[in-house]
Amino acid sequence: MKKLWQKNNKKLDPVVEAFETKGDLLMDQKLIEYDILASIAHVKTLNKLFLIGIISEPELKKLLKGFEEILNLYKKGEFDLKIGDEDMHTKIENYITEKYGDIGKKIHTGRSRNDQVLTAIRLYSKNALESIELELTNLTKSFKGFSKEYGYIQMAGYTHMQKAMPSSIGLWAGSFIDSLENDLTLLKIVYKLNNQSPLGSGAGYGVPIKLDREYSAKLLGFTRVQQNPLYCQNSRGKIEASIIAALISVLQTINKFASDVLLFTTSEFSFFKATGKITTGSSIMPQKKNVDLAELLRSKVHLVLGNYIQMVSLSSNLISGYNRDLQDSKKPLIESLEITLETLMVTKILLENLTPNKEKLEAAMTEDLFATEEVLKQVLKGETFRDAYKQVGKKYLKGGDTNEKDD
Amino acid sequence: MKKLWQKNNKKLDPVVEAFETKGDLLMDQKLIEYDILASIAHVKTLNKLFLIGIISEPELKKLLKGFEEILNLYKKGEFDLKIGDEDMHTKIENYITEKYGDIGKKIHTGRSRNDQVLTAIRLYSKNALESIELELTNLTKSFKGFSKEYGYIQMAGYTHMQKAMPSSIGLWAGSFIDSLENDLTLLKIVYKLNNQSPLGSGAGYGVPIKLDREYSAKLLGFTRVQQNPLYCQNSRGKIEASIIAALISVLQTINKFASDVLLFTTSEFSFFKATGKITTGSSIMPQKKNVDLAELLRSKVHLVLGNYIQMVSLSSNLISGYNRDLQDSKKPLIESLEITLETLMVTKILLENLTPNKEKLEAAMTEDLFATEEVLKQVLKGETFRDAYKQVGKKYLKGGDTNEKDD
Amino acid sequence: MKKLWQKNNKKLDPVVEAFETKGDLLMDQKLIEYDILASIAHVKTLNKLFLIGIISEPELKKLLKGFEEILNLYKKGEFDLKIGDEDMHTKIENYITEKYGDIGKKIHTGRSRNDQVLTAIRLYSKNALESIELELTNLTKSFKGFSKEYGYIQMAGYTHMQKAMPSSIGLWAGSFIDSLENDLTLLKIVYKLNNQSPLGSGAGYGVPIKLDREYSAKLLGFTRVQQNPLYCQNSRGKIEASIIAALISVLQTINKFASDVLLFTTSEFSFFKATGKITTGSSIMPQKKNVDLAELLRSKVHLVLGNYIQMVSLSSNLISGYNRDLQDSKKPLIESLEITLETLMVTKILLENLTPNKEKLEAAMTEDLFATEEVLKQVLKGETFRDAYKQVGKKYLKGGDTNEKDD
Amino acid sequence: MKKLWQKNNKKLDPVVEAFETKGDLLMDQKLIEYDILASIAHVKTLNKLFLIGIISEPELKKLLKGFEEILNLYKKGEFDLKIGDEDMHTKIENYITEKYGDIGKKIHTGRSRNDQVLTAIRLYSKNALESIELELTNLTKSFKGFSKEYGYIQMAGYTHMQKAMPSSIGLWAGSFIDSLENDLTLLKIVYKLNNQSPLGSGAGYGVPIKLDREYSAKLLGFTRVQQNPLYCQNSRGKIEASIIAALISVLQTINKFASDVLLFTTSEFSFFKATGKITTGSSIMPQKKNVDLAELLRSKVHLVLGNYIQMVSLSSNLISGYNRDLQDSKKPLIESLEITLETLMVTKILLENLTPNKEKLEAAMTEDLFATEEVLKQVLKGETFRDAYKQVGKKYLKGGDTNEKDD
Repeated sequence: MKKLWQKNNKKLDPVVEAFETKGDLLMDQKLIEYDILASIAHVKTLNKLFLIGIISEPELKKLLKGFEEILNLYKKGEFDLKIGDEDMHTKIENYITEKYGDIGKKIHTGRSRNDQVLTAIRLYSKNALESIELELTNLTKSFKGFSKEYGYIQMAGYTHMQKAMPSSIGLWAGSFIDSLENDLTLLKIVYKLNNQSPLGSGAGYGVPIKLDREYSAKLLGFTRVQQNPLYCQNSRGKIEASIIAALISVLQTINKFASDVLLFTTSEFSFFKATGKITTGSSIMPQKKNVDLAELLRSKVHLVLGNYIQMVSLSSNLISGYNRDLQDSKKPLIESLEITLETLMVTKILLENLTPNKEKLEAAMTEDLFATEEVLKQVLKGETFRDAYKQVGKKYLKGGDTNEKDD
Repeated sequence: MKKLWQKNNKKLDPVVEAFETKGDLLMDQKLIEYDILASIAHVKTLNKLFLIGIISEPELKKLLKGFEEILNLYKKGEFDLKIGDEDMHTKIENYITEKYGDIGKKIHTGRSRNDQVLTAIRLYSKNALESIELELTNLTKSFKGFSKEYGYIQMAGYTHMQKAMPSSIGLWAGSFIDSLENDLTLLKIVYKLNNQSPLGSGAGYGVPIKLDREYSAKLLGFTRVQQNPLYCQNSRGKIEASIIAALISVLQTINKFASDVLLFTTSEFSFFKATGKITTGSSIMPQKKNVDLAELLRSKVHLVLGNYIQMVSLSSNLISGYNRDLQDSKKPLIESLEITLETLMVTKILLENLTPNKEKLEAAMTEDLFATEEVLKQVLKGETFRDAYKQVGKKYLKGGDTNEKDD
Repeated sequence: MKKLWQKNNKKLDPVVEAFETKGDLLMDQKLIEYDILASIAHVKTLNKLFLIGIISEPELKKLLKGFEEILNLYKKGEFDLKIGDEDMHTKIENYITEKYGDIGKKIHTGRSRNDQVLTAIRLYSKNALESIELELTNLTKSFKGFSKEYGYIQMAGYTHMQKAMPSSIGLWAGSFIDSLENDLTLLKIVYKLNNQSPLGSGAGYGVPIKLDREYSAKLLGFTRVQQNPLYCQNSRGKIEASIIAALISVLQTINKFASDVLLFTTSEFSFFKATGKITTGSSIMPQKKNVDLAELLRSKVHLVLGNYIQMVSLSSNLISGYNRDLQDSKKPLIESLEITLETLMVTKILLENLTPNKEKLEAAMTEDLFATEEVLKQVLKGETFRDAYKQVGKKYLKGGDTNEKDD
Repeated sequence: MKKLWQKNNKKLDPVVEAFETKGDLLMDQKLIEYDILASIAHVKTLNKLFLIGIISEPELKKLLKGFEEILNLYKKGEFDLKIGDEDMHTKIENYITEKYGDIGKKIHTGRSRNDQVLTAIRLYSKNALESIELELTNLTKSFKGFSKEYGYIQMAGYTHMQKAMPSSIGLWAGSFIDSLENDLTLLKIVYKLNNQSPLGSGAGYGVPIKLDREYSAKLLGFTRVQQNPLYCQNSRGKIEASIIAALISVLQTINKFASDVLLFTTSEFSFFKATGKITTGSSIMPQKKNVDLAELLRSKVHLVLGNYIQMVSLSSNLISGYNRDLQDSKKPLIESLEITLETLMVTKILLENLTPNKEKLEAAMTEDLFATEEVLKQVLKGETFRDAYKQVGKKYLKGGDTNEKDD
């Protein structure tokens, strides 16, 4: 397929072409829908410049029809990018030109692939972040339901993986509710940062015709125009990094929950049981029932952490303006959004397939958990805290811990 | 020095003790001031529980006097933590007990080092973030001044490190202004996340006496109480990570600016000159004048990126509640805040010691930069964009680029 | 498809199943070939236990036929893993059982998916590392050829991005040759670490029948058996991390080369020209010819760096023995190997499409580059180095650098 | 203090100077000893050029005396770098010049700070790696002793944190022995990579006098000369990264051990007991005895992982030759070496203060651990593996797990 910038028939080395586009086309495949939405907004904006007459009303209609066709093909899985296609922008322009003639050659007036792809990425992220917010809210509701149902049950609280003080399922579940609430605050702010329209910023230095950027921004649902065209490009790698950091925060919450679940479902603890819907077996050990779903939830924060490194590291030490290194920033962003969305959905399923083992939980409420309370009781009788602490401490460590003897 | 938890005279192995506390004491040394502020708020809160009578009015006065003494000693550099001190909390409690007797043994009533150190860290971060916001605002002003003075000067705009389109110093400086504005949005939100009082959450499971957490939060200037005591502990590593991510955003902006400066001050570009106040020489090459300050600014995002990894990675795969791994999270946080603050201050100095080389900048405004404009002119005459693009392109690449011949 | 561990008809939640296997099946698709090789070695080893008679000679023949069939289907693209397949091990066992009956049910005797997948990963890595070594050697040869052809040409040497001392293309190319040589040393050692057979270690605790692990290791081309079965599992995430670290070293070399190429092909430097085979254009600016291939080579070290984080971070803070978090370690390993292999191949193409611009290179050999030589000449006349340095320095900085005046 | 490159009295801005040198001086303070060793080798090499007569025999004697003085002052803590000193090289040259006159001005003949600091770093790393190898060997011995003493004791083997198959303390300890052995292989190779002398490579482009680099390399104990002077500089960030990667491998081993210890010393598991020499208490809960030493060992791999990121990320996307960003690479290297050394020493102490709780370990050897053995017994009786697996599985999961009912 002919590239947008090819003026003659010179060709790229095929190994080079594969290296440059193979992985990228997979990402573009996920962005196509948004690229078309951006194209629609762009040609409408061009049409608005009616005195100049770049795109007339009938031309606009034809173009909109063409874009809709592509969207439909895409949804049916019949608009797949292949090696040789360079990228989605090229494929779309070529499709229109082949089918509708010269008006296809007009759609790139006043834009660059630099602002075009960035617009598609922003729209994709906007959409994904909305879904993530929704799933996070759903998960929060599940935790609230869990807490309502089982919150009254007592539970040992741990520090240093050792029994520390009395806690409860309510306190435990509540910690995740508050954690998710903080995560939501972060998601909302990166959503806002992402909600700026780069369309019309061209290659990073504006375009020589006066496009109504407010108009195209509004058509696309952006709350504002990202004014400085060079910052549009320079914000690549930066706004994405902020998005990923917010996702990491969400995944840290899930990681904590999954870590707890894995410890609390060991046979030694047995605080919770998981239903068969979420456990799997071993290929060699017939007796096994593993909560390995929790292990795969636990691992996700690490994957996205690696993506964050990719994002920040590859976009650093580069001068202003578009550098093609940025092409490699699509994958860590898109993957991170996908991972987080799925993780939230699946965590909800894990939670809903978890039931407390009340008997075991109660049995774990041993006397030592109440040592601090005992100290405080003596304090209320007039003892200083530190002296009461020492007295109570002696009782527990002398009696219960033979190990102490050889200290 | 006797540890808070020592009930007898058993001692830690000295190698173990050094390993556990050596680096941590350096961090505590930076936190002492905030630990004392938190202690003051705590004893005032204990005093408020007057019916229970844990700390009486005269005792409170003595304690406040004691804390003030320590603060003064600290400011004079006479309250230095040394190996054997365990941590700042211990040293402070011991100081009070030695000098003022048994009331020292009361100050730890109703708190744990877990909520105490977290309170100190939050206060430290709050303070550091305020300074960072201020310096960021100052730097923004400098960029505005720079733009006002030199903004009119034309400058070549680059993509792929190759000349692309006409730009200006105004556009270039403006990109950093907008970038810093986005960074500020992030700083404000992490400031807000950090602005929750963990004091009174004890070891992560609350305390058995009814402390007025709203009161102590207010005394310390926090806007709200972080309610769930377990989440207080579980937010360690999480809120800090969010703070560091915001700092990385700031440092990405600086990294871009520094990268530009280093390219634009090469003798080959010579777009800007740096004064001798910020350049240094070589020990072997007498002719050199390096803008190495920009190199050291450029490197900072990478250092803080590493700190982010430390923060997220060390706090993952851990169960709920305090785990001592978290002790190692102090350094990446504190270091990142310090680095960012200094970087902002020094970037301002770099900017103020930079002057455009108008002659060189103008000479770089070669005809090819206007090729896109030429295309658009033909578009306005009725040509489609793509055809006009091809025509103009042939002119430039045939004539100017002998390399093209052997394609 | 029925899972290996399913004893009845209970099913996993489909969302859970997709989450658990979707991405993993893509990795297994790349490992199938090696999994079959490992299966062949395993059934041969079982057959060797002839006194016990687990697998008889005729059964072995049938199994080998079955495995060959799968391999052929695989190579024709007709053995594709789909959601529902759980993993490659299951699909293979099920295929054999369906087609050849009960002997299929014997192949998993004395092994676990834990040692099985690890064996496949090791074989995959072994193969990939061999290809990488080959391509690295080819690239080294190209650098040697480049140096032989152009090495004599003088070139300015830079420090701090400023002209420093005289250099040459030979010195420059030589630096990459030496760098690749060091990288090769690392590749060889991780190849050796990887070259241990985990087959026969079962789930991490050995198997209750006496398999001849030396025999299966030899069949698979491993130089030794990885003895401790628990370490087989515990080395997951560790040996992979070492492999990735060696790849990062290779990619650091490429990153440096690409960074140089990008600076040296700017119009301001023009030290080198790239042919049209590797340059691409802009969709909006018709005059552009970008060496963006070098940008995509430059970015690769960052991607693999992120993969390294994923590997180390996800496998840390886990107890001994297999944890399913490790499933997520396949992708960063496989991706990193693939990226490095392609990067080496493409770097060679970049180098071969690069020609020095002798005129420009010579013009850049300005007098100041020889200042250090001038100093040394004075030293040979009896001056101390530091005094000679000061004298020569004054000459250059007074005369040449008007900027110095306003210091 | 006057800088080596100052030809007049212009001064750096003091904020800039602090930013540039404050942290770096702390690193230089650790390198001084090695910088002096390198200086001694350098002046001896200069002296060897006797025909040229740069440094005469009597001058050499004086210089060696001067260097020895500095070494002694340094060891007594009386040669401390302070803000204003620029760096150790400057301070040393200035000391000699002030005390011994003009011969001080000769010592920098034929070298640059670029090769000088790199030589010091290599020597420091060489020394640190030797200590690390020694401590790793000591730890291995301790694991062997532990295994000898307790290896016979049975222990449950875990996968997915669930009981899986029978294991033993011998198998468990053995896994760490094998892991450390692999780590040693890596340490040896990075030791070798580091063992190249950069002295004499100047600023990266050689020096205009013919120094006998083999001679100085030999004096310093390097096994070979790093030939290409540009690669000397370009290997900065690369060889260090390889060193850190090897250290990460060591710390992964420790992380696994510490993770196990923390789980196995919970009251729920109680497989091992730790003596009071390594446990610490809580400031609020008097009953606590935490093995928090293991937590601080567990966290170390994460710190060094962050350092690795810093190293690779800051040295990427930079052109060939020295760039001052590299100054910031000293700290992650030195810190990582120090952390690893201490971690190994302390892990040994942890191990030596751990004793198995035989009773608990035996009690955990429940019947289900032997399910796989049961399957294999049936296989030996002629059953296929998969059918036997299903039968045995039903027995365990029907009986023991009431949860299974509602699957």
